Amino acid sequence: MIAIFTDFGIQGPYLGQMHAVFAAEAPAVPVVNLFPDLPPFNVRAAAYLLSAYSQYLPETATCLCVVDPGVGSARRPIAVQADGRWYVGPDNGLFSIVIRRACQVDAWVITRVPERLSASFHGRDLFAPVAVGIASGEDCPGEPVEAGTLVAPSWPDELAEVLYVDHYGNAVTGVRAQTLERDAEVEVAGRRCAFRRTFAEAESGEAFWYQNANGLVEVALNQGSAAQQLGLAVGTPIQLSR
Amino acid sequence: MIAIFTDFGIQGPYLGQMHAVFAAEAPAVPVVNLFPDLPPFNVRAAAYLLSAYSQYLPETATCLCVVDPGVGSARRPIAVQADGRWYVGPDNGLFSIVIRRACQVDAWVITRVPERLSASFHGRDLFAPVAVGIASGEDCPGEPVEAGTLVAPSWPDELAEVLYVDHYGNAVTGVRAQTLERDAEVEVAGRRCAFRRTFAEAESGEAFWYQNANGLVEVALNQGSAAQQLGLAVGTPIQLSR
Amino acid sequence: MIAIFTDFGIQGPYLGQMHAVFAAEAPAVPVVNLFPDLPPFNVRAAAYLLSAYSQYLPETATCLCVVDPGVGSARRPIAVQADGRWYVGPDNGLFSIVIRRACQVDAWVITRVPERLSASFHGRDLFAPVAVGIASGEDCPGEPVEAGTLVAPSWPDELAEVLYVDHYGNAVTGVRAQTLERDAEVEVAGRRCAFRRTFAEAESGEAFWYQNANGLVEVALNQGSAAQQLGLAVGTPIQLSR
Repeated sequence: MIAIFTDFGIQGPYLGQMHAVFAAEAPAVPVVNLFPDLPPFNVRAAAYLLSAYSQYLPETATCLCVVDPGVGSARRPIAVQADGRWYVGPDNGLFSIVIRRACQVDAWVITRVPERLSASFHGRDLFAPVAVGIASGEDCPGEPVEAGTLVAPSWPDELAEVLYVDHYGNAVTGVRAQTLERDAEVEVAGRRCAFRRTFAEAESGEAFWYQNANGLVEVALNQGSAAQQLGLAVGTPIQLSR
Repeated sequence: MIAIFTDFGIQGPYLGQMHAVFAAEAPAVPVVNLFPDLPPFNVRAAAYLLSAYSQYLPETATCLCVVDPGVGSARRPIAVQADGRWYVGPDNGLFSIVIRRACQVDAWVITRVPERLSASFHGRDLFAPVAVGIASGEDCPGEPVEAGTLVAPSWPDELAEVLYVDHYGNAVTGVRAQTLERDAEVEVAGRRCAFRRTFAEAESGEAFWYQNANGLVEVALNQGSAAQQLGLAVGTPIQLSR
Repeated sequence: MIAIFTDFGIQGPYLGQMHAVFAAEAPAVPVVNLFPDLPPFNVRAAAYLLSAYSQYLPETATCLCVVDPGVGSARRPIAVQADGRWYVGPDNGLFSIVIRRACQVDAWVITRVPERLSASFHGRDLFAPVAVGIASGEDCPGEPVEAGTLVAPSWPDELAEVLYVDHYGNAVTGVRAQTLERDAEVEVAGRRCAFRRTFAEAESGEAFWYQNANGLVEVALNQGSAAQQLGLAVGTPIQLSR
């Protein structure tokens, strides 16, 4: 299975062109748009979301990961195998949280140069063909490197800010819920939010936090938009009282 | 074939995570996002849309249906087979219009408890695995119940309001066009709309109603946005003069 | 492989219903949403985008193309094979740029009348079944015609305007970059933009033009929205100084 994580968004011709590569080269390998609208250019937010949302995939999954504001510059193309799963994309810190939390990591710098390599769309021209090869059981077309040589920004273990606002207006953060007690409060935009296990446990219109289905702290309103009511957006900081 | 009906929307990681379940468990079963952006939390609107849009699927289709504001509360997970097609989702009235219009209905309460069951994402953790099993020819993992014991709200046979506004600004209603004469008028937002068979038959800028490709009354403008011009939104009532 | 080009947009039940046709009739043929949100009703813009974005598909691809404001009127349904690839859709000029640029063209008027033909959704009822037949190796169900008899508007070879604004705010135009020297400037909304090979070569906040991954002139800002900063939209004209 190939799972796509990218900030390309769901509109336009970008996802489709990567799917066309997969359809041409390995039509029997299933492909899912796992998180196709990560916050644009935001490698740091994407690194935490990638870690949380890829851990629920089968251990044989290959993740094609493209949040790549430096495309066309000197950043290296890499592939990483962490606890079984493969990650293919740019060496810009995008995989650093996955690597930090993994027990077993192997890394490669991709050395294959495709016949056609556009300046701006390495997702289609370089990373997708490598991902489909790996997902089909081929060796990674690169040189092994020490994982310690990859770009590893000094980001915190838990990122206490809003990383994504979903369709309902719920605000996903970069804090793993297992690091908080259930009586902890989350303060965001001047509002203190208590823990609720489910939406049904919250009063109507009450802002609360809960452990989302991927293990992250998420701020929500029961049947309303937390983002709109509280003024939340990607980057809004949260405070934790443990 | 698995067809997804949900209010999860097309953004974010929700559809993708359900597709990942299908890809892992039955990669050869095709999956289509049939109606992925039903109006949020609106079980009533979804019930009419589900009936209209699932009847065009092959009779062997399995519909995974998740509009589930009560997720995590006591509402039951169910599976229904109606005129051949399967429907898997919450027992909150979502299937009630399908059932009312079907000739042959069988129902089950799902009793399987998955190993991993998040409080907020039963679409991924419970309903998707059940749907993929049924689509693969397995028995429904539950207990048969009388269809009459399922939640059955006293909703009208034709729902005279706007249920969905599409990409072009056309307004889909819950009234089946076959219940209207062709000289009937639809009044909406103070505007009387006559019947036109096709967009091409309407004057430029004229608001009209037509029978959409799934049999519902739809209010439209020729090459313009009816929603914007007439101020229509989900929930806007319509009046019929037969 | 079937590649979908349409202005149906990514929301709602339209793409899904076409996918359901493919899933029912040829579940093993991969289908990609290549460009699902072409500018609504804009056949001219779509014709240039179709040419640019289909040329990167394998030569065995079948393109299902639906930008069809005249659906239900007398316009003919056609299929065209141009340099190997198939194009199925309405005879309204949508294929005229593909044809103009192709070395080898064959054309058919589709004569099959499907059992169920709605007035407004020929994409699902007529074009999708024809496309899936062709993609499965069947003959085109129609009569051969001279390509010269198809609708061929007198549009320019390069269309000097914005045809699409993407997720990042980049503005795709209808001018092929190979027709410009690298020291040419693109003037748009009163702003003169120089050529940059990559985003990384541009100053922060600088508006520039580059050759996008499909060979078109695209106006962009490094890590910002050109559309928002410069006020660009579909139809905004550009001027070229060669």
